[in-house]
Amino acid sequence: MADQQELARRVFVSQPFTRFIGAELTGAGPQNAEISLPIVDHLKQQHGFVHGGVICYLADNAITFAGGLALGGDALTSEFKINYVRPAVGARLVARAQAKAVGRRQAVCQCDIYAVEDRKESLCAVAQGTVVPVKS
Amino acid sequence: MADQQELARRVFVSQPFTRFIGAELTGAGPQNAEISLPIVDHLKQQHGFVHGGVICYLADNAITFAGGLALGGDALTSEFKINYVRPAVGARLVARAQAKAVGRRQAVCQCDIYAVEDRKESLCAVAQGTVVPVKS
Amino acid sequence: MADQQELARRVFVSQPFTRFIGAELTGAGPQNAEISLPIVDHLKQQHGFVHGGVICYLADNAITFAGGLALGGDALTSEFKINYVRPAVGARLVARAQAKAVGRRQAVCQCDIYAVEDRKESLCAVAQGTVVPVKS
Amino acid sequence: MADQQELARRVFVSQPFTRFIGAELTGAGPQNAEISLPIVDHLKQQHGFVHGGVICYLADNAITFAGGLALGGDALTSEFKINYVRPAVGARLVARAQAKAVGRRQAVCQCDIYAVEDRKESLCAVAQGTVVPVKS
Repeated sequence: MADQQELARRVFVSQPFTRFIGAELTGAGPQNAEISLPIVDHLKQQHGFVHGGVICYLADNAITFAGGLALGGDALTSEFKINYVRPAVGARLVARAQAKAVGRRQAVCQCDIYAVEDRKESLCAVAQGTVVPVKS
Repeated sequence: MADQQELARRVFVSQPFTRFIGAELTGAGPQNAEISLPIVDHLKQQHGFVHGGVICYLADNAITFAGGLALGGDALTSEFKINYVRPAVGARLVARAQAKAVGRRQAVCQCDIYAVEDRKESLCAVAQGTVVPVKS
Repeated sequence: MADQQELARRVFVSQPFTRFIGAELTGAGPQNAEISLPIVDHLKQQHGFVHGGVICYLADNAITFAGGLALGGDALTSEFKINYVRPAVGARLVARAQAKAVGRRQAVCQCDIYAVEDRKESLCAVAQGTVVPVKS
Repeated sequence: MADQQELARRVFVSQPFTRFIGAELTGAGPQNAEISLPIVDHLKQQHGFVHGGVICYLADNAITFAGGLALGGDALTSEFKINYVRPAVGARLVARAQAKAVGRRQAVCQCDIYAVEDRKESLCAVAQGTVVPVKS
């Protein structure tokens, strides 16, 4: 399992878009993953909140890694759904995803995305999606 | 209506994340919007395809603008769902969203996202979501 | 293909819940299906509109049959999403689903659900989901 | 709050489709609801499992009641998404929904649906959706 988590970290940092956006894999377990992202100005929309596209990147990617860890190998998100529940303001975002149901063909995952300021976490979005193994 | 579309363009270019990612609003109508994005290396994932987070940014934002144009004012995407149907490879991505049903409180929109290479478009993802007016 | 459509009709009428609720498969094509349902009092909720549970049954099942026809065999809906856009009032409901993208492992389908009164159709809900082959 | 829960029970039993399908509101709290349904033959599909349409009725309605209790009044589900994770087999189904985020304009809820046999619960589906107040 430690090998799986080490593999997840290597895959994560090998994603060019992830480096471009500045995200970090801050947690990886048997069926869960956590991604953190400092909030900087170029991640915002016109009202000064974090852009929804940034939040859905975090949901998509945290779900992929939670599902991949649960499935035990290379995987991708085939679909997901997100509800935004509060404007994202703070020092950083944290997305925590976990597999709710794991089979041979898929892992169904949920993800909560929080904005963090002075150790206070505010729920900004909730997501649910499907991860499938990549055929090799 | 031309004023609405001009307003949409001004809002679009005022989004810092949109400038950071390099997207362009290439179409705006009474109930629809089109966003284009050149595919460059830093938008990709570990297998060389465009990262799902980029595709869901396009879906989220095209849905917001189609819904905002349909509702006639400042608006935001409150939720959406996306299915990825093919790896995104090509010269650029194009997201086309349109409102399917418009009321006072919401516009429900659908969005198709294509990868384009040599004028050939391949469907990469389909999305559906809700846009609500921003309270002023 | 005619054989596929004949098979779809046989499977449809073999569903006990479909007979219980009173639905009819009124269309079946290479990648699409249409289900109709007369609106009767016991399908309603407390305000006299058709219950959302009836509408999501139609979406789920029309998506299953459109996807199954597109995949060419026994199939099931693995997930879907629905937006209700108008209260359903009228003489009957019609759900029309079509496959938007078909691969070996899945068909992604969309479905529009209409209430019909005096030949006038009003869009009540839109849905999008994934159909996967049943392993035999 | 007890009044809210009593109101929820009265609304629940006043739904004709709920009586037709045979469901019971077995739990109601400040932000949550539980619906139970005995599994009988006419609720099944062609393979002998509970029909997806029955499961999505339970998700839709449990989400409506959890959201309505959280919002403190008459409410409806405007959209939801469901992932089926296992065929539903057993003596009865139980759907448990809870509000994850409550605002003035909406409550976002999640729902787990279990099949129950001999006190053993198996997760069959997970859902997430939006509940909005009914304008009076």
